[in-house]
Amino acid sequence: MSDEDSEFDAVVARVHEQVEPDETERQAMEATVEKLRERTVSALSELPVDAELLQVGSTARGTWLAGERDIDFFVCFPPTLDTDDLRQYGLDIGHAVLPDGREEFAEHPYVVGELDGFDVDLVPCYAVDSATEIKSSVDRTPFHTRYLRERMTPALTRDVRVCKQFMRGIGVYGSNLKTKGFSGYLTELLIVEYGGFRPLVEAAADWKPPVQLDPESHGNASFTDPLVVIDPTDPERNVAAVLSRENVARFQHFARELVAAPREELFFPEERDPLTPTAVREEFTARGTTPLALRFERPDIVEDQLWPQLERSREGVADELVRRGFDIFRTGVFADDEEVTLLFELAVAERPRVERHTGPPVHVRAHAKRFYEGYDDSDEYGPFIEDDRYVVEREREFTTAQAFLDSDALFDVALGVHIESALEDGYDLLGGDEVATLADRFGTALAQYLSPTARGP
Amino acid sequence: MSDEDSEFDAVVARVHEQVEPDETERQAMEATVEKLRERTVSALSELPVDAELLQVGSTARGTWLAGERDIDFFVCFPPTLDTDDLRQYGLDIGHAVLPDGREEFAEHPYVVGELDGFDVDLVPCYAVDSATEIKSSVDRTPFHTRYLRERMTPALTRDVRVCKQFMRGIGVYGSNLKTKGFSGYLTELLIVEYGGFRPLVEAAADWKPPVQLDPESHGNASFTDPLVVIDPTDPERNVAAVLSRENVARFQHFARELVAAPREELFFPEERDPLTPTAVREEFTARGTTPLALRFERPDIVEDQLWPQLERSREGVADELVRRGFDIFRTGVFADDEEVTLLFELAVAERPRVERHTGPPVHVRAHAKRFYEGYDDSDEYGPFIEDDRYVVEREREFTTAQAFLDSDALFDVALGVHIESALEDGYDLLGGDEVATLADRFGTALAQYLSPTARGP
Repeated sequence: MSDEDSEFDAVVARVHEQVEPDETERQAMEATVEKLRERTVSALSELPVDAELLQVGSTARGTWLAGERDIDFFVCFPPTLDTDDLRQYGLDIGHAVLPDGREEFAEHPYVVGELDGFDVDLVPCYAVDSATEIKSSVDRTPFHTRYLRERMTPALTRDVRVCKQFMRGIGVYGSNLKTKGFSGYLTELLIVEYGGFRPLVEAAADWKPPVQLDPESHGNASFTDPLVVIDPTDPERNVAAVLSRENVARFQHFARELVAAPREELFFPEERDPLTPTAVREEFTARGTTPLALRFERPDIVEDQLWPQLERSREGVADELVRRGFDIFRTGVFADDEEVTLLFELAVAERPRVERHTGPPVHVRAHAKRFYEGYDDSDEYGPFIEDDRYVVEREREFTTAQAFLDSDALFDVALGVHIESALEDGYDLLGGDEVATLADRFGTALAQYLSPTARGP
Repeated sequence: MSDEDSEFDAVVARVHEQVEPDETERQAMEATVEKLRERTVSALSELPVDAELLQVGSTARGTWLAGERDIDFFVCFPPTLDTDDLRQYGLDIGHAVLPDGREEFAEHPYVVGELDGFDVDLVPCYAVDSATEIKSSVDRTPFHTRYLRERMTPALTRDVRVCKQFMRGIGVYGSNLKTKGFSGYLTELLIVEYGGFRPLVEAAADWKPPVQLDPESHGNASFTDPLVVIDPTDPERNVAAVLSRENVARFQHFARELVAAPREELFFPEERDPLTPTAVREEFTARGTTPLALRFERPDIVEDQLWPQLERSREGVADELVRRGFDIFRTGVFADDEEVTLLFELAVAERPRVERHTGPPVHVRAHAKRFYEGYDDSDEYGPFIEDDRYVVEREREFTTAQAFLDSDALFDVALGVHIESALEDGYDLLGGDEVATLADRFGTALAQYLSPTARGP
C-alpha cells in the first residue's frame, strides 16, 4: 500500500468517525422509530383497508449522518383504493400518529411533525407491483428503499456516509431545486455501482460527460443530462435528472483534488465570514463594475417553487438588460425567509442617447420604401446607407440600466408568476453604495459571490 | 404622354442644358486637342518605331461634362517593343509635348501637364490585337474607347452626361478607391445597354443584386459583386468590380426617388455648410457617445494608395476596440492634403477593472488542471465553475478606449504600412471636447458625418 493510499484511507476513516451516529444517537433513533411504528400500526387498525408500513430514506437504510434527525414513514395502500380515500386515510393516520403535526403538500397532502426531537414525515402512497406502474412519484420511494437495502453492506454504508459528507463539504449535496445537487438515493446508487467511495471519486476524476450508468441494464430512454443513472426500479427514469452541469463539474474538480491530495478540509470546509457593508462597497469599487439590486418580499411559497422562479426571473431580467446594451458581468440571487434579492453586476450600465437601428436591404423595394418613409424627416439621424441597408440612429428608450429596472418595462420580462406579483407589490432598487446594505442580511452569500471558489454556494 | 413622363423629360432637359459644354468650350477643347495631336505626331516622328496616337476618355467620346478639363492621349506602341523602351519613349514624348509636365506612375510612368488650361495625360501603352492579350491594364483603354465610339449616338451622349451628373449629385461617381463608385466607362456601358438614362434608372429602381449584364454575351468568369457588367472587350473582367455595395444601394435609392418625383435638386444638391467646433461639440454631447480621434500627418502617397490603407486601419482599430469591449457606434475617415483623421465614435468607452476569462470544460482533464493551477492562489477572482467550465475574473489590460489608443498595443493592429509609419512618426489622440477642433479642417465632412443622408459622402 502506497503512502497516498494509506493517506486517503486515513482521511476517510477520520471523516467517518465524525459523521457516524454514535450509539446514543442510534438508540434514540431506534426507540423513536419503534414508537412511531406502534402508533401507526394502531392507527391503521382503525381503517377499513389493509395497508403496509415502510420506513424509507437514509435512516431506514442506516446511511444517515450524525446529527440528521429525519424519519420518513410511508403508508402503502392497495392500488385499488380511491385517491380521495387515500388522501383522507393518509391525513387521518398522520394526525393520529403526530397529534401536533401540520399538513404539507407534495403529490398528495401529508403530515409532518416532531417526536422526541426527530422530524417525522408520514406519507401515504400506493403499493403498486412495480415502479413502472406508479400513480405518483411518491409511490416509487418504497422500491428505492427495498432495492438499496438488499445491496447495502457495512462497508458501503460507511462509504455512503463519507461520500455524502464530501458532497456537503463541496456544496453539491441535495436534490432540491436550489442546490440541484446529488440526492441521497443517487449517492447510494453511485456508491453501490462503483463499489465504494474511493472507486467513485477515482472514476469521477476522469468522467467525460455524458456519463451513463445503468445498474440493471434495462434503460430504454435517452437523456441529454451530463450524468445519467438509470433508475434500477424504472427503466425510463434518470435518477440524476435534477443534477446541474455545474455540480457534476464541481464533483469532478474536487474528486481530483481529493485523489491528488487527500485532506479533511474538503469534507469540512471553514465557514465563510460574512462580509460587512464596507467590505462589499470596497469590493465592487475595486472591480469597477456597477451593481444594481432588486430587493423585495419573499413570496409565500415553498423553496422548490421559489428557486426555479427566482432563476427564471434572474435570467429574464439579465437577458433583457443585455438586449438593451447593458452588458452583464455576473448575477446573483439571495433569499432568506423574509426577503429576496436579485443582483445584477453590470459591465456596462450606461449607453448613449442614440442607438443604431438597421433597416432592410435597399433592394427589397416595398419593405425598404416603408422603412425610409417611416424615418424620413423625423428627428433621427439618417436614414443613411451602410453596406446594402438603410440605417437610422434613433433615441434609445433607456440610457441607464437603473432607469430600465425602475420602469414598468421590467414587467414585460418573463418572470416567475409569484416573483412578478411580489415585484408588483413593490420593490427597492438599490444602486451604487446602497448595494452595500445587502450585507446586513446576505453577508455570507456576498462573501461567496465576491470571492468565488470552485465549491457550490 | 403622362404628366410624370413629361416632368421627367423636362428635368432631364434642364439638367442637360447645364452640363452640356457650350460652343466656346467645345471649340477651345478641339483647338487644344488639335495642338496636342500635332505636337505628339511630330515627337513620334523622332522615334525609331511606329506608334499610333489615340485620344481616349470622355472628351474623346464627346461625353464630358461642362467644366471638365481633362484630355487623355494614349500612344500605342507595337507589342514587340521592349518594356524598358516603351517606358523611355513614353516619357520622351510626354516631355516633348508637355515641356512643363511632371511624371506620374500607374502601370508605367507617364507624363501629365497643363496646356491652355486643360489637364493633359500622355500615357504609353501597347497596341495589342485584342483586350484579352493586354500586357498591362492601360492597354485595355483604347479598346473601350473604340467600342463605345461605335455605339454612341447624340441621344445616348446626352443621357451619359445627364447620368454622370446624377451620379455626381448623389455622390457615387468615380471609380477611385476613395469613392468606389461608377467609372465613366461603366456609366456609358450602362446607358448603351439600357438604351438611355430613363430606362436605366427605371431598371435600377427594381434591381435585385446580384445584377448581371453581359453586352457581348461572352462572359466566362463568375463574380460575387452586387453589379456585374462583363467588359465587352474582355470576357473575364467585371467593369463594376470596384463599385461598392453601398453605392449600388445609393444609386438604387435615388433612382427610385427620381422616378417617383423627378427634380433637379437630386442632380445639383445644395452644398453642406461646414460645422463649427461648437456645433460638433454640441452634436456629440446630444448623441451621448464618446468620440476619440487619431490625427496624424498624411503619408506622401497617391489617393488610390492612401484610401485602402486608411480603410484597413480604420477597420483594424475598430475591430480591436470592439474585441476589447469598447463598442463602436460609428467611425469616420477624413483626409485632406496635409492631415488624416480616424474617428472612432464609441458607445462604450470604459469597462470595469476586471474581465471574465472562461477556461476549459472541467472534464478535459489535462487542460483543466493546467488552467486551474495557473490561476489558483493568484490575485484574480476565482477560478470558479459556471456550467461545465472554469471561469476567472482577472484584471483588464485597458479599462478605457483612450488608454488603448494611447498605447503601443495600437501597433499590434493590422494597419496599412504607410499609416503605421505615419503613426509611428507621431499622432494626436483627441478625446472629449478636443474632437471639436477637427471642425477647423474637416467641418464639411463632419457635417455629413453628423447629419448623414442616403447620399455618398
